[in-house]
Amino acid sequence: MIYVVGIGPGERDMMTGEALAAIQKADVIVGYITYIRLIEELIQGKEVVKTGMRKEIDRCQEAVDIAKTGKTVAVVSSGDAGIYGMAGLILEIVDKEQAAIEVEIVAGVTASIGAAARLGAPLMHDFCHISLSDLMTPWEVIEKRVKLAAEADFVVCFYNPRSKGRANHLQHALEMMMAYKSPSTPVGIVKDVGRKEERKILTTMADIDYEEVDMTTMVIVGNKETYVSGGRMITPRGYTL
Amino acid sequence: MIYVVGIGPGERDMMTGEALAAIQKADVIVGYITYIRLIEELIQGKEVVKTGMRKEIDRCQEAVDIAKTGKTVAVVSSGDAGIYGMAGLILEIVDKEQAAIEVEIVAGVTASIGAAARLGAPLMHDFCHISLSDLMTPWEVIEKRVKLAAEADFVVCFYNPRSKGRANHLQHALEMMMAYKSPSTPVGIVKDVGRKEERKILTTMADIDYEEVDMTTMVIVGNKETYVSGGRMITPRGYTL
Repeated sequence: MIYVVGIGPGERDMMTGEALAAIQKADVIVGYITYIRLIEELIQGKEVVKTGMRKEIDRCQEAVDIAKTGKTVAVVSSGDAGIYGMAGLILEIVDKEQAAIEVEIVAGVTASIGAAARLGAPLMHDFCHISLSDLMTPWEVIEKRVKLAAEADFVVCFYNPRSKGRANHLQHALEMMMAYKSPSTPVGIVKDVGRKEERKILTTMADIDYEEVDMTTMVIVGNKETYVSGGRMITPRGYTL
Repeated sequence: MIYVVGIGPGERDMMTGEALAAIQKADVIVGYITYIRLIEELIQGKEVVKTGMRKEIDRCQEAVDIAKTGKTVAVVSSGDAGIYGMAGLILEIVDKEQAAIEVEIVAGVTASIGAAARLGAPLMHDFCHISLSDLMTPWEVIEKRVKLAAEADFVVCFYNPRSKGRANHLQHALEMMMAYKSPSTPVGIVKDVGRKEERKILTTMADIDYEEVDMTTMVIVGNKETYVSGGRMITPRGYTL
């Protein structure tokens, strides 16, 4: 049995009851070392398999192999396991091997939702998620999605917005979007959502300081109606007050 | 003090610790009657203000008025309060009145994430949320977003997909999308996510039975890579196994 568990963006109180229960039921916990640290107090006495970054296939293969021995495994992802997390890979491996293993995906609060709650209510209207990582997606595909999302006036949440290896992706994306969106469009940035070091910044497409953005940062770009007031980023749903 | 609390899509174990704590701290619970019922056991002995459908402004105004008397209020939304929920309206009213009330948005698992976990892993790549309700959004805006989302090959999650008053919106949307997507594109449908009466259906854009879809249903349309195997809907992230 494998539980693929989204532990939410940060501290334990952003986990669901279902996620806590799945971790309690597991004999073995498998995950990226940073996420394992976030739940250390919950997994005392359990067998733990920690792996480094970019070892996703090894990690998931190991979880599947352990589950084959009859143990109950919890694979932990930050946020929600089904959003750029481990759910897909576990199901792909189990499917490819035709392994007789039960898999349950346990939903969690993804980073965009956690960040939005800290910023105010930026996701009150139609929005999209775009990952700016071109490790597995051609940059042309990302570029096309960014342009069409801007034309559609979606609120846009950027995952993996910026790293040393792709220092200019976010800037390129925002520049493309400005063909459709005003430079004064509000942008909300939250670093380390739900963790001790959490920090939020309200800025605009024109004024954003890209140096503030790294891989543990969520960037949310508003739609044409989004405004900032009283330190909150709000996208109206359309009610007339 | 107002907590705007997302209680998740269904039963209590899909709530976060933060959401449970906010409800415990509240003197008064305000919400749509259906959501109040989902958390009845948690709110024994508290003052409860239930309102009917389409009374969102009245409900939020009442919450703000009660908070002004010094009471702690929890406004509950199903799913996440910041996604087509009450977070935006509460902040808009507090902002308009320049009321000196502290507001905290408590994130929750939104319906798309809950449904995705039941279906498999359909949201592993870029996706968007589109509400098909034209009560407050012109149909032309919705239509434009549907077309551009299909062209961008986003996985698309439809909120408010179909009701008696808009029986054909989902059909119109899928027909428009088929200019860009194959009729064999997988579609996952989950009714009443996380509730006792939960039911899931795996179908395709060509074969969907619209009669299966109502207002408490989440409809997720895959991208070009999405496939169904072993009863699971999977959108690959791009790993090579």
